[in-house]
Amino acid sequence: MQIVLPKEEMEPFLDEVFPQVKGMFGIDRLDEDMLVMRLFADDRHLRPGGTVSGPAMFSLADVAAYVVTMSRIGREALAVTTNCSIDFMRKPKSGRDLLAHARLLKLGRALSVTDVLLFSEGMDAPVARASLTYSLPPKR
Amino acid sequence: MQIVLPKEEMEPFLDEVFPQVKGMFGIDRLDEDMLVMRLFADDRHLRPGGTVSGPAMFSLADVAAYVVTMSRIGREALAVTTNCSIDFMRKPKSGRDLLAHARLLKLGRALSVTDVLLFSEGMDAPVARASLTYSLPPKR
Amino acid sequence: MQIVLPKEEMEPFLDEVFPQVKGMFGIDRLDEDMLVMRLFADDRHLRPGGTVSGPAMFSLADVAAYVVTMSRIGREALAVTTNCSIDFMRKPKSGRDLLAHARLLKLGRALSVTDVLLFSEGMDAPVARASLTYSLPPKR
Amino acid sequence: MQIVLPKEEMEPFLDEVFPQVKGMFGIDRLDEDMLVMRLFADDRHLRPGGTVSGPAMFSLADVAAYVVTMSRIGREALAVTTNCSIDFMRKPKSGRDLLAHARLLKLGRALSVTDVLLFSEGMDAPVARASLTYSLPPKR
Repeated sequence: MQIVLPKEEMEPFLDEVFPQVKGMFGIDRLDEDMLVMRLFADDRHLRPGGTVSGPAMFSLADVAAYVVTMSRIGREALAVTTNCSIDFMRKPKSGRDLLAHARLLKLGRALSVTDVLLFSEGMDAPVARASLTYSLPPKR
Repeated sequence: MQIVLPKEEMEPFLDEVFPQVKGMFGIDRLDEDMLVMRLFADDRHLRPGGTVSGPAMFSLADVAAYVVTMSRIGREALAVTTNCSIDFMRKPKSGRDLLAHARLLKLGRALSVTDVLLFSEGMDAPVARASLTYSLPPKR
Repeated sequence: MQIVLPKEEMEPFLDEVFPQVKGMFGIDRLDEDMLVMRLFADDRHLRPGGTVSGPAMFSLADVAAYVVTMSRIGREALAVTTNCSIDFMRKPKSGRDLLAHARLLKLGRALSVTDVLLFSEGMDAPVARASLTYSLPPKR
Repeated sequence: MQIVLPKEEMEPFLDEVFPQVKGMFGIDRLDEDMLVMRLFADDRHLRPGGTVSGPAMFSLADVAAYVVTMSRIGREALAVTTNCSIDFMRKPKSGRDLLAHARLLKLGRALSVTDVLLFSEGMDAPVARASLTYSLPPKR
């Protein structure tokens, strides 16, 4: 499905709708196949031992699913997460950025479903997987 | 990770541990990248309108995650499903076999995690996605 | 929220929309607090060792969430499950009926969310828990 | 199951293992039936409009499941979340603390399963539900 809100427009849109996380995330790639989104390694999100926390991994998966959905439907700040299931599989590497590889599996009238794999930059095996459902505003 | 229980040995093993579903499933492909498993279209699993039911989709995802796990650890009939999250996204096509594309995301000491996409044969868009955790017997 | 489709009308409605599972389930209780639904112990749903299978547990949770939702919105055969997460926690007792205790957590414009605990009859500890989302047809 | 790490010992233990969230959470009640845990309303966790964010809700559910588990097995900082499924059902009320009502559904050799309902203080209907699995260190 076609991208209607490309990377260059998505970044300022995110800063506008989520000013409280400005500077926390970056978009490496956004095309019809996949979004690659980055959580910058930053002390605020670390557990003792220096790894990224569970809530920070959830945040990245959630914002990635939002970006994937918005990229197809355009500016709809009102879309809300209704469900997330997440499996934490490995310890993230200390001091590394976290990367989300997100794919849109469904875009329906009322719901989108996105699949996300999370990686510590430079590691082959995923640290987590998540699937997220967004509820979309009616009559778009 | 290496396949220790290949397709030729997996099929009789399944018939042995799950005699009640004998003939219900087939293995199209089993290698280190992916398992492709098939639920034969069959009246028992149909809803009115001829589509595969939710429980039949769950069954296929569950047995696919079991096969993927067993293919790496060998015959361990005692592994049990501890968690499944499943998103039903599209209506399966009537009269078509259902195919599971399953990938092992993690094989740990105590748990395996498998990701599954379900397709009606001949359709490009998945009808469902699932992730399943199996608890593995100790001291393998 | 008020029950608009009580137990006496729900049972024939289920037989009408799901004829393929006629006789498989019964309703013990249906009121504003809780639905108690029963899967009759029956050889078809058993694994070796005589316990209820995972797919049979999924089926009971799924139909219970459907009944809880329909009891509030009335006859809407078109509601569909969009998500289920299920934790299998204990082995069901052999030869016992399986009971679902289901509670409606949300009934919105587009979605319902139901929480289900599954018990082997006569056991105190739950064998499984599930949460299910149904997508509801528009403009009810 | 008996509480071996009561409220008075849990609070300093949490400060010790999660110093980065010190002051963010409080325990209202901890007994064999239920844990009630509180996320103090605080600008850091708010979205535009003043409501608690999804990641903050996830954090509260996650720490509540950890506390419920630790309260039965004692000080085991190494337990890790392996799975979470969460349904976001209503918008939290602006400016209110968020309360988690958490119940331990299973404590096994290798895993615990906890069910959590999240409420905006003073509201009857839950804003979210979550279930979380913790993997427990071997040979306790």
